[in-house]
Amino acid sequence: MSEKIGFTDEYYMQQALKEAREAFRKDEVPVGAVIVCEGRIIARTHNLTETLNDVTAHAEILAITSASETLGGKYLNGCTLYVTLEPCTMCAGALSWAQIGRIVYGASDPQRGFSRLTPSPLHPRTEALGGILAEECGSLVKDFFKRKRS
Amino acid sequence: MSEKIGFTDEYYMQQALKEAREAFRKDEVPVGAVIVCEGRIIARTHNLTETLNDVTAHAEILAITSASETLGGKYLNGCTLYVTLEPCTMCAGALSWAQIGRIVYGASDPQRGFSRLTPSPLHPRTEALGGILAEECGSLVKDFFKRKRS
Repeated sequence: MSEKIGFTDEYYMQQALKEAREAFRKDEVPVGAVIVCEGRIIARTHNLTETLNDVTAHAEILAITSASETLGGKYLNGCTLYVTLEPCTMCAGALSWAQIGRIVYGASDPQRGFSRLTPSPLHPRTEALGGILAEECGSLVKDFFKRKRS
Repeated sequence: MSEKIGFTDEYYMQQALKEAREAFRKDEVPVGAVIVCEGRIIARTHNLTETLNDVTAHAEILAITSASETLGGKYLNGCTLYVTLEPCTMCAGALSWAQIGRIVYGASDPQRGFSRLTPSPLHPRTEALGGILAEECGSLVKDFFKRKRS
């Protein structure tokens, strides 16, 4: 077991950032995610929409699939998702079906983020917290699109 | 090529219903989908959330992945999705990323369907039409849950 119980949100977000940087290296929109259960990281994923040629291959969707595989169950009530960018409509919907316990995200996404939507697409028992390492998470995405346009 | 160009919405919905019945047989919530491009069915899928132990394995998500694989591209602008039940938040978000041309659904889903949400989670250029073979599509779901409860 490489992760200890009781690490901070910032620690796990750094792990998600590592994944986001891996996406950047692959020329993917740099979003990374980890899912933590009882202090252990049980899924580490990053956006692979270009590599897989599939719009559904967001970091969060891949993380849910991976965590369900690890746990042998499709509900993630006891888990926390750390993701570098606010989840979009699709991912928020998926997280709702998974009944995830907690969502911690880095940068906000005013255009695509779930928090624009009414009623909230999250499961009523899901706790959500944004703004953890927001600047670092957001800069990575901004740098990516700046490089794309240049 | 087994499908001809110019079939009606009802015809393609019947094909989606075949998939939904297959899901029913597998003890899955009976929702089926097909994606049609230039009159040809390029993806046929049904809900597999129990079989795959994965909340993201809705018929629509599997259909998008399958159609993208067939077309070799991740955008489905020229395609129509036929699905027996109104897409949920997750699936509507995925269909938006895919920029699907048209969505035709059977039964409405007042609790989970995308049309509850504001602003609309669909891509602005996506056309949506509900109510095709609605009774047949809805009965299948109702029968499934009635059987589950008995």
